[in-house]
Amino acid sequence: MFFRLMRRTQQDVGFTVVSNAPHPSLCLTLNGCTQLGRRCVCRVLKQTRGEILLASKNMDLHILDHRLRVTSISKNGLVNFTHPLIKLIFLRNRTRCKFFSLTETPENYTVVLDEEGFKELQPSEHLQVESSIWLPLNVVSNGNISSSSQAVGVTKIAKSVIAPLAQQHVSVFMLSTYQTDFILVREKDLSVVISTLEEEFNIYREVEGESVPVCCQDVSNGLQKNGKEAIQPTVHPVLIPQNQFCVMSLDPDTLPSIAITLIDVLFYSSSPKEDTQSSPSKDLDCIKFFSFSLIDGYISLVMDTEAQRQFPADLLFTSSSGELWRMVRIGGQPLGFDECGIVAQISQPLADSDISAYYISTFSFDHALVPEEDIVSVMDMLQHQRKEAATN
Amino acid sequence: MFFRLMRRTQQDVGFTVVSNAPHPSLCLTLNGCTQLGRRCVCRVLKQTRGEILLASKNMDLHILDHRLRVTSISKNGLVNFTHPLIKLIFLRNRTRCKFFSLTETPENYTVVLDEEGFKELQPSEHLQVESSIWLPLNVVSNGNISSSSQAVGVTKIAKSVIAPLAQQHVSVFMLSTYQTDFILVREKDLSVVISTLEEEFNIYREVEGESVPVCCQDVSNGLQKNGKEAIQPTVHPVLIPQNQFCVMSLDPDTLPSIAITLIDVLFYSSSPKEDTQSSPSKDLDCIKFFSFSLIDGYISLVMDTEAQRQFPADLLFTSSSGELWRMVRIGGQPLGFDECGIVAQISQPLADSDISAYYISTFSFDHALVPEEDIVSVMDMLQHQRKEAATN
Repeated sequence: MFFRLMRRTQQDVGFTVVSNAPHPSLCLTLNGCTQLGRRCVCRVLKQTRGEILLASKNMDLHILDHRLRVTSISKNGLVNFTHPLIKLIFLRNRTRCKFFSLTETPENYTVVLDEEGFKELQPSEHLQVESSIWLPLNVVSNGNISSSSQAVGVTKIAKSVIAPLAQQHVSVFMLSTYQTDFILVREKDLSVVISTLEEEFNIYREVEGESVPVCCQDVSNGLQKNGKEAIQPTVHPVLIPQNQFCVMSLDPDTLPSIAITLIDVLFYSSSPKEDTQSSPSKDLDCIKFFSFSLIDGYISLVMDTEAQRQFPADLLFTSSSGELWRMVRIGGQPLGFDECGIVAQISQPLADSDISAYYISTFSFDHALVPEEDIVSVMDMLQHQRKEAATN
Repeated sequence: MFFRLMRRTQQDVGFTVVSNAPHPSLCLTLNGCTQLGRRCVCRVLKQTRGEILLASKNMDLHILDHRLRVTSISKNGLVNFTHPLIKLIFLRNRTRCKFFSLTETPENYTVVLDEEGFKELQPSEHLQVESSIWLPLNVVSNGNISSSSQAVGVTKIAKSVIAPLAQQHVSVFMLSTYQTDFILVREKDLSVVISTLEEEFNIYREVEGESVPVCCQDVSNGLQKNGKEAIQPTVHPVLIPQNQFCVMSLDPDTLPSIAITLIDVLFYSSSPKEDTQSSPSKDLDCIKFFSFSLIDGYISLVMDTEAQRQFPADLLFTSSSGELWRMVRIGGQPLGFDECGIVAQISQPLADSDISAYYISTFSFDHALVPEEDIVSVMDMLQHQRKEAATN
């Protein structure tokens, strides 16, 4: 996880400087940040025009400038959507879509995309669309706290974001990528989200590339519970497949060079190959899971080691330790979008044990990825949780 | 046209050796041929087991081992066929298709492909299928004639193949590629084709990679006119657009590296680009024409210079002279598949003037490509022909 940590650390350093340094050196330092800090640079440069008020709060919460739809394409229906999906993945100069994510699971293809991308998908019996508009939230921790935690991913925001939102009965749809973790909330829940999180976070809304602080007054309704009282969430069955997963990235400029492999894996993996023997009875304990996202120009890929072998090793990059991840799939029946606390239920105990986790929600199920070396403790924890639920 | 001529010459040399050299050196020489002579090698090695009978006939005609369908996809319907077409073009290990050609014209997309490829196309209101099975013929001239003609393409077979077949009322569908010229005839016309051409050609039928001589006895019916008497063909209106075309090839192993550009040109050229100004009013005298074929592992591309600029210059190769071609589109109304003599009508006068020509039939119209420097003579010739037709 070196690179991922390093990158977050760079952002942290950027913000430490912000709150201490005078104006000229501030700009210099921020411009020296990696491209990954672009969004943060905008925000701070704007702030320097007014007051610098990064006082006591430890973390920033950004409400990103994307209005998202969560959709699902049936397995059989994918052929009808190859044309728009290839456009959205590979032909950036033909679309204004800036937020695109495609995840294949055994059940279907989950596609999360902004309104510009959504326009490309023709209505069809093979396309299911969740009716809400979802907004992605993104947490950036300030450097002036010294966290003893080395964990990354959803674990890091379990107590500060996930748990409070679950308590306020706000449903979240998680999308971890190589670069960051997006917390998707329904647009209609936004005022509750802000009320819930404003005590802990500096909240910014991104508007046309600039980060605008959200003042308390903006949320006229103040803190209110979201409709009904938070209920005790169901403890869902989990599935722990045998695949080992990698979380990877790719320079967008080299995307064309892996295009055919990626197209093959995404769109043709279910059709037989003519030039090879049918592969020896595939491990029944493995599941199909492949995720590609292209968000604000950054590519993230989650795939198992079998899929990874099809790609040239020198183009995809992962953490320097080449870490492998195991999956916990949450849900026996499709989870739907209304139950709250599903993410909290698994991320809280992970946070208690300081175990990193990626978390990817899809149309039917949720998926947590935990480091391979922690899977036994996680299994113990899950078993304990289920026993407790049974006795309560 | 150096490479194209050179390649044909290599085959010629191969065959000259065949008829003169003893067995061991024969094999050696043939195995030293370029990969492009593969088919010929098979044929001759088989022959050396029996008698070598390449006596007096100057040219060989091969009936290739592909049973083809000629189809058309509507412009609006292309999105529904992106999935199978990308498979057929780029994923050779997922299909048994060995003969595939896709040509975009302003009217539609013409797809010519073998039965294995045809299976991939789902029936649809957007797909038109010509009802016949078509067989591709291929002419290879023996080295022991010294032809004074430098012309290539359909011109070279105008008098020996095209004209006699037209006289026998056999309808042909032409497909010139960078590598060779395929003459497609209906399977039901095969006995007439053989009777018509056996005097001039050694005829071979390719069966599972081996070339088997077709004996006269094989054609029990003997020479017969094809149903009705050959009629005087209509003189069709022609259109001469301003585009300049190139005929190119590509190492199949480098196909993945141009995949995204090729996908963009083939499947998305009608959708607007977001990152550029809408292109200045495109020359109204140009027409959309782009042809890609992948036949027995060889790639051929025909595109205009505007499309060519989108591809990296170092990967596509053309003749060393970088020759440019102009198009003569034949037909005012869609030509259909039953009229005979359309190809003959244009290829005969070209042969008389020794002007090279590629010839590509599509579902609606025929297209001849002639060297840019000859377009004025060709226009004169066509005008003369039309005047004569008007006075008769």
